[in-house]
Amino acid sequence: MKSIAMIALSALLAGVAVPASAQFAKPEDAIKYRKNSLFVMSQHFGRLGAMAQGRIPFDAKAAADNAALVETLSHLPWAAFGEGTDKGDTKANPEIWKEAPKFKEAMDKFQAEAVKLAAAAKTGKLDDLKTAFGNTAATCKGCHDTFRAK
Amino acid sequence: MKSIAMIALSALLAGVAVPASAQFAKPEDAIKYRKNSLFVMSQHFGRLGAMAQGRIPFDAKAAADNAALVETLSHLPWAAFGEGTDKGDTKANPEIWKEAPKFKEAMDKFQAEAVKLAAAAKTGKLDDLKTAFGNTAATCKGCHDTFRAK
Repeated sequence: MKSIAMIALSALLAGVAVPASAQFAKPEDAIKYRKNSLFVMSQHFGRLGAMAQGRIPFDAKAAADNAALVETLSHLPWAAFGEGTDKGDTKANPEIWKEAPKFKEAMDKFQAEAVKLAAAAKTGKLDDLKTAFGNTAATCKGCHDTFRAK
Repeated sequence: MKSIAMIALSALLAGVAVPASAQFAKPEDAIKYRKNSLFVMSQHFGRLGAMAQGRIPFDAKAAADNAALVETLSHLPWAAFGEGTDKGDTKANPEIWKEAPKFKEAMDKFQAEAVKLAAAAKTGKLDDLKTAFGNTAATCKGCHDTFRAK
């Protein structure tokens, strides 16, 4: 059963996020890659949050740069949830593979919000950034609540 | 002395790679960020190497995508070599801060090659990719040999 679930997720992801050469030498590399890309993304997303929440001054150029990076990085982690990457140094919940379409839906939602976030940051308007940051953060949380172990 | 070296590197990096908001909550986050961004970059760079060396079939679209990512990621790690990040879970050599201009020069060389790599990958010609990959890899190695502990 697990193997079928793995194949199902791989097939779902293949259409959207996995270039033909997006292979990892071993499952540990894939796990490291998805954690590393998520952490780098979180740092740039966090800077937008600090501006949105007034913890650091709003800097339109920095906001646009950081949001563009978040959008670019939003495409990366998902190719690394392939077969054999459910075990190891990971907080990934089995639900990722058991409920592959739901996981893909959460990923798609986040990516769509990341596109809007990058567009909002380009406007140079703090209010636009605040709205888009909140909407994007909600998709992060939604996915983490379901698919990441506590 | 160390503190002056730290400030010297921070000042050098400030002009090129550090947006105003590129701060990390704590030194451990900076160390994790630079290691994580370098690892993600290495995975995409490795896929180009696999094509350049004939280990996987040449795929022009995948090559262009991976090289564009390498170029984007080539800007990230360096802002995370600030003050207080010389100690901890890191292989960074003290020479990074002792010889800040040399470190910056190595970083600049790599970034310049990453730009050429992205341009070469866009041509769709495997020979162009091979040349650019080799030149870029040489700048990786040059920096690692001097600035990364064995």
